[in-house]
Amino acid sequence: MTDRLIYLPLGGAGEIGMNAYVYGYGAPGKERLIVVDLGVAFPDMDTSPGVDLILPDIAWLVERRAQIEGIFITHAHEDHVGAIGHYWERLGAPVYARRFTANIARRKLAEHGHPDSVVKVVAPFPQVVDCGPFKVSYLPISHSIPESAGLLIDTPDGRVLHSGDFKIDETPVVGDPWNRALWEDVSKNGVKALICDSTNVFSTAPGRSESTIGPAITEMMKEASGMVVATTFASNIARLKTLAMGARHADRSVVLLGRAMRRMVEAATEEGILDGFPAVISPEDALNVPRENLMLLVTGSQGERRAASAQLAQGSYMGLKLQEGDTFLFSSKTIPGNERGVIRIMNQLSELGVDVIDDAGGKYHVSGHANRPDLETLHQIVKPQFLIPMHGEHRHLREHVKLGRANGITGIVAVNGMMIDLSGNTPKVAEYIETGRTYLDGTAKVGAMDGVVRDRIRMALNGQMVVTLIIDENDEPLGDPWVEISGLSETGRSNTSLADIVEQDLSQFINRANAKTLRDDVKLEKELKTIARRSTQAEIGKKPEVIVIVSRLS
Amino acid sequence: MTDRLIYLPLGGAGEIGMNAYVYGYGAPGKERLIVVDLGVAFPDMDTSPGVDLILPDIAWLVERRAQIEGIFITHAHEDHVGAIGHYWERLGAPVYARRFTANIARRKLAEHGHPDSVVKVVAPFPQVVDCGPFKVSYLPISHSIPESAGLLIDTPDGRVLHSGDFKIDETPVVGDPWNRALWEDVSKNGVKALICDSTNVFSTAPGRSESTIGPAITEMMKEASGMVVATTFASNIARLKTLAMGARHADRSVVLLGRAMRRMVEAATEEGILDGFPAVISPEDALNVPRENLMLLVTGSQGERRAASAQLAQGSYMGLKLQEGDTFLFSSKTIPGNERGVIRIMNQLSELGVDVIDDAGGKYHVSGHANRPDLETLHQIVKPQFLIPMHGEHRHLREHVKLGRANGITGIVAVNGMMIDLSGNTPKVAEYIETGRTYLDGTAKVGAMDGVVRDRIRMALNGQMVVTLIIDENDEPLGDPWVEISGLSETGRSNTSLADIVEQDLSQFINRANAKTLRDDVKLEKELKTIARRSTQAEIGKKPEVIVIVSRLS
Repeated sequence: MTDRLIYLPLGGAGEIGMNAYVYGYGAPGKERLIVVDLGVAFPDMDTSPGVDLILPDIAWLVERRAQIEGIFITHAHEDHVGAIGHYWERLGAPVYARRFTANIARRKLAEHGHPDSVVKVVAPFPQVVDCGPFKVSYLPISHSIPESAGLLIDTPDGRVLHSGDFKIDETPVVGDPWNRALWEDVSKNGVKALICDSTNVFSTAPGRSESTIGPAITEMMKEASGMVVATTFASNIARLKTLAMGARHADRSVVLLGRAMRRMVEAATEEGILDGFPAVISPEDALNVPRENLMLLVTGSQGERRAASAQLAQGSYMGLKLQEGDTFLFSSKTIPGNERGVIRIMNQLSELGVDVIDDAGGKYHVSGHANRPDLETLHQIVKPQFLIPMHGEHRHLREHVKLGRANGITGIVAVNGMMIDLSGNTPKVAEYIETGRTYLDGTAKVGAMDGVVRDRIRMALNGQMVVTLIIDENDEPLGDPWVEISGLSETGRSNTSLADIVEQDLSQFINRANAKTLRDDVKLEKELKTIARRSTQAEIGKKPEVIVIVSRLS
Repeated sequence: MTDRLIYLPLGGAGEIGMNAYVYGYGAPGKERLIVVDLGVAFPDMDTSPGVDLILPDIAWLVERRAQIEGIFITHAHEDHVGAIGHYWERLGAPVYARRFTANIARRKLAEHGHPDSVVKVVAPFPQVVDCGPFKVSYLPISHSIPESAGLLIDTPDGRVLHSGDFKIDETPVVGDPWNRALWEDVSKNGVKALICDSTNVFSTAPGRSESTIGPAITEMMKEASGMVVATTFASNIARLKTLAMGARHADRSVVLLGRAMRRMVEAATEEGILDGFPAVISPEDALNVPRENLMLLVTGSQGERRAASAQLAQGSYMGLKLQEGDTFLFSSKTIPGNERGVIRIMNQLSELGVDVIDDAGGKYHVSGHANRPDLETLHQIVKPQFLIPMHGEHRHLREHVKLGRANGITGIVAVNGMMIDLSGNTPKVAEYIETGRTYLDGTAKVGAMDGVVRDRIRMALNGQMVVTLIIDENDEPLGDPWVEISGLSETGRSNTSLADIVEQDLSQFINRANAKTLRDDVKLEKELKTIARRSTQAEIGKKPEVIVIVSRLS
């Protein structure tokens, strides 16, 4: 069979977050593989209650461990690098990254006991990593974290450009500015496929530079009378710098609150990419500074319950307290699904008399991703034979394909698990891979479809009932069945205990049950469950989850 | 003691939704009372999983049932009238409403077996309802449902105006247009207090009329090539009419899908307030109409899982199917917290090849509430002595007070449970009433703080474990303890069954336990629970909820 070039998203295509893409080249089934990014997504109460992190399902890769030549991380955001520590042992291939990203990746690997040597630092283009049939270079591109990069992947079937997360920003505050000449240069001899960020395809205005919001932030911090608190993603290092510089210009000392915030600034400082970032003071020292000379930079822009912002909103954090006249700035977008959490904090701040400023006007926040006109700019520069949108929900991918098509570029919607053959004159679906999400739940990894989380959701929606019955050595019931409830109203229609009512109905059944039924565990459990549910339904209008425990003495 | 005039919000103040306000006049503790609105709020997975509806806690009112002179409903939205059926029996007072609102209220009361006579139809001002010390009139005001009204409440201590939900709309498509002269007239002799809608206080642009979006909707429906589906709140009757008229102008027949949608149109038609609404066709008849001549008006604008929009997105509803080339319009705002559900539907539609149009540009949706400049207009017309913001979260109420204060009006933030004495020269907090939320859960009503829902959330976050142990007549364990799990990973660190591991640890304890411990149920349960949690924590890194059942043979 002839060799082929394949692209397979395992995460990030059909969702925002959890990026994990695979490229392969070789005979079908024997391709040599590289992995681009290994990110995480974040759980929510609706679909993944109690889960700690969402990881891509990498079973397909693990089965092909021996074919993996390398893992390339485009930048240090959690949705691109967050899974590296959890998965490296099962993949075993060298990890490549630019210097700052490598710093972050090494911290994550160290948490799982892996040495720094796992990660190889790569300089930007024209440095080339030879990786089996692939030659890979890092193409600097502007984004909201330093040293973000797209990847130039030369293959025997032609050149592939993987955009990574990007925006077109000539003055990005930190990291490399947009370098049109570089992208023109690498595109001039023809590009087989552009695999391209899609998150902002519905944003029709041209993107704005990070540096456009600095003046408004400085102004706001000057005008505020009390303490100013600002929150954004800790990994949005560009914004951290914009906010800290604003504070300095407004004669405010900067305090970093929250572990992720301190960690990111530490890593960026270590790598020397936060030049000009003002010195920070400790929370203890801040207590001796007048509040009009303070700016707290805090975690929790998404309303996370345990983050610094939530704790400040509830009263205090590390001795620092908010009060009437203080100002709280959300310099961030609220990710869909997090609105309630953010609003809860806003209202708690309102109760304290704190003025809240949010992203409503776009005055204090710009996106780190390329808007629609900027995507078109990249398409026009690269002029790829194929456009494969990545990093987006289905609607983003589909819209991005439509956008490319309108400009004459062939595209295809490829969602997680769709292996695309890029070798021919049109991109084709080669195979559908069974994939999904893996939940990190405590320290266990469970498949999203394993039923574990489904059972939790059912208990949350329906409540839980435990029915216990003891059967003696002669297959006779020993006493009556009894019932424990959890998450159910204690009383119902009859105004007496729900458990009592259900126990009566169960006893009635048991007292009439014949010897055959009492000997048959399966039947007994099924009947008791049915009666418990029916009886609860009649009493309180709900059908609970029921666990039946039949204990047989022998 | 001298008589006083009080205002007490029991719902809607400190939240959006679940409106329920009380006014009283008389000697402290003996006030004669009127209730304004009895609405509901909607549950969410984060805070109220499995709950069917959220109702205000009316315990304070029920204790004072004999003091209630009447219940006034301002308009027929669920957050103003939704609780009337559930609560009327416990309050017993006559219900007043304008004709269309009365129609809806009667349907709700009928579901609970109460006769139509409970609801008295009131004509708008100048008709007056004498209600103990109060004289109450309905003041027509524009909103998104017909016959919305504010209330003019004359009391021995002066005139109170309760705005109800409103916007300033001179061409509202349905219902009464904004009547400036009327509000000037009722305000000219002085108003003690304006109790005022606050939901849009952060929207700084002047509000737009419902009639401004008709042309764009018509245009869109003309241009769409396939079937058009539009969704909005069923109770937004103005929008239903705007959408249906758009369909008619685009030569499309209208199909109503979803029970709430059919019901609202039926009630509005019954009351003769939907003049000009085009005739609708049945889903069966629609199958014989070319899809470019169809417009489906469907429920589920908030992504509700069982609504018509969700079912269409999943394939079909009542035989109607969406396909490539069809268009789906969200002519609605997504309520915070519902984003994920709405996005899920958008992506399912994208998979079907359906183009989705949402509210992004404001082209196909306007709010039904007064924006900030319109609130100021009302303040300036009414010139109240006091401004008491209602219907808003804390941040809305606080901002609204600040807005009034900036224009020289005295205000106070009064949240649910804060009884305000309006008699003197400044509004004062007279008392804090214990209040909260009541959950309708199946057919049972449970207090939000009763622990029922808290237990469900804990099971969802932590998983559940049931430990069973039998103790015989001699206080000796009969066999080993055993464990059932639900919502927990089946295996953990040791790669063997979690239940087995925990059972081993429990058995070890039981085998060593002395006679005293084995006789002591409380101690035994506590120890078994502790061991089960510790053992699970070691194995999978989670501390589950544990139910221990010790069965004693006797």
